[in-house]
Amino acid sequence: MKLKMMYSFLNTDLNLIEKELEETIQAEQPLLRQAGLHLLQAGGKRIRPVFVLLAGKFGDYNIDKIKHVAVALELIHMASLVHDDVIDDAGMRRGKPTIKAKWDNKIAVYTGDYILARSLELMAKVEQIEAHKILAYSLVELNIGEIEQIRDKYNFDQNVRTYLRRIKRKTALLIAVSCQLGAVASDVPASIHRKLYLFGYYVGMAFQITDDILDFTATEEQLGKPAGSDLLQGNITLPVLFALQDPVLNSQINKISESTTYEEIQPLVRAIKQSSAIDYSTDISNRYLEKAYKILKELPQNRARNTLYNIAKFIGKRKF
Amino acid sequence: MKLKMMYSFLNTDLNLIEKELEETIQAEQPLLRQAGLHLLQAGGKRIRPVFVLLAGKFGDYNIDKIKHVAVALELIHMASLVHDDVIDDAGMRRGKPTIKAKWDNKIAVYTGDYILARSLELMAKVEQIEAHKILAYSLVELNIGEIEQIRDKYNFDQNVRTYLRRIKRKTALLIAVSCQLGAVASDVPASIHRKLYLFGYYVGMAFQITDDILDFTATEEQLGKPAGSDLLQGNITLPVLFALQDPVLNSQINKISESTTYEEIQPLVRAIKQSSAIDYSTDISNRYLEKAYKILKELPQNRARNTLYNIAKFIGKRKF
Repeated sequence: MKLKMMYSFLNTDLNLIEKELEETIQAEQPLLRQAGLHLLQAGGKRIRPVFVLLAGKFGDYNIDKIKHVAVALELIHMASLVHDDVIDDAGMRRGKPTIKAKWDNKIAVYTGDYILARSLELMAKVEQIEAHKILAYSLVELNIGEIEQIRDKYNFDQNVRTYLRRIKRKTALLIAVSCQLGAVASDVPASIHRKLYLFGYYVGMAFQITDDILDFTATEEQLGKPAGSDLLQGNITLPVLFALQDPVLNSQINKISESTTYEEIQPLVRAIKQSSAIDYSTDISNRYLEKAYKILKELPQNRARNTLYNIAKFIGKRKF
Repeated sequence: MKLKMMYSFLNTDLNLIEKELEETIQAEQPLLRQAGLHLLQAGGKRIRPVFVLLAGKFGDYNIDKIKHVAVALELIHMASLVHDDVIDDAGMRRGKPTIKAKWDNKIAVYTGDYILARSLELMAKVEQIEAHKILAYSLVELNIGEIEQIRDKYNFDQNVRTYLRRIKRKTALLIAVSCQLGAVASDVPASIHRKLYLFGYYVGMAFQITDDILDFTATEEQLGKPAGSDLLQGNITLPVLFALQDPVLNSQINKISESTTYEEIQPLVRAIKQSSAIDYSTDISNRYLEKAYKILKELPQNRARNTLYNIAKFIGKRKF
């Protein structure tokens, strides 16, 4: 089953959110408008809005309220990508030139700031003060994760725990918070919105680990960027950490530096792809998914819960 | 009278705010902690916290509540400076190396993001939802102002209106909002907090125009950076706009480009300093100050009002 089919009952609301995303980003200022539209057109899975809406279904679901949270969280995600592309000096994302590549770093820094500010404007429409506290905390953690990612680049002497903490901050937390805020904005009781947070956290961890595996196993066409890009940029992901335990791969990985070229690492990328590092990583991803399934069983039975289950299952099997 | 003497009755509370600023910025993450402390030690007038506290005096003043607003607004100001220094490629600020100079652009982008996130965490302690709306709106405007500043660089064909709109967004709005949020967080009625907003706006405009004048009239020692830095970076400020009306100065200004050196513009900087462009600019600054005095008279008479008056007067006369 395709991902989108799983939540086709949300289509009307998701179309509304897509429209709101466009309207929010339609800045008067021409440069910001062009940069924003360019970002939107690059697409994306809009998985955060989907989680917001599904979590809202556990409470007093009102699309006119919850849409602000859904749009805000997608914008926060987009804003962080724009700044990440400055940091990573990335030319392409999702098969399209990045803002920093199409314009320059300066425009990208301010476009990221602007999109974040717009998202806060939407969040200010959410009355539950708890929602603001949760969001602010997750933004702080997100930024710590980003700084740590810079610090840990080309550092081959790090362990699985460092990696897991980093992807929690960089990815899982915002997905966890998407689930939680959709619930908080729909007045879902704390006992339930905390479980939705945990579900989002587990799924977010599995999602990022899968992403990091796909960087080795997917094709350039599927990724929209060359395979092995993470490794080339010195991002030490879970497959790399496992590969480092193999003496032959270890010595090859340790030779990677900022001057390493794409061509040079291709044999290594293929070797990692064929090594047991991929299986070990998949195993850890699956363990997070198991935890996600388990916490779901503690939630009230409804269509949203079934859909969350199907999405988690999909994430474990996705090929790109 | 020295600026600090005017509000010595706030000293206990301002010391508390300085301590909270330090604590907030004391990140666990070593890089962020060092960058944050470096920023704090560079000093600054902390004028935004002063306005927050003074505005709070018009209502139910509670330092334990209002301190969050004061610290948050100073942090937002600092975060925007960190990103500005990336954009301006600035090596020095207040006589100290900038974050981007001491570390690099990447660290500066994320440090700015991190400090903003910390400020939102503090703001989330403010219960009045109106405060969040006001702040989010001003962040959006601030970022539009920043993008416009890039767009308008080295564009000598702009008018006074463009300039005024830009400094409103870049500077005046955050000062206006400092006054307003101090009041909103102290449950000051709307009829009064809107006037405090206007006061802050007028004073903020005069403050920035004075800053732009001082870029020509102050010494390098007073400025912490070479005189004429704005012009050298292609920022067209009010004195420059008036100088452009002089045919001789006009042709010299129009020769400035990104490749112009500091030495090359010194004769021009001196010529603008001695021209009537400075008087015309001072005149506009004074007109804003007059409006600030006028709106103050509509506010309840108290010590805070007197202090706001003295600060406005000081801004009109400050030499650095």
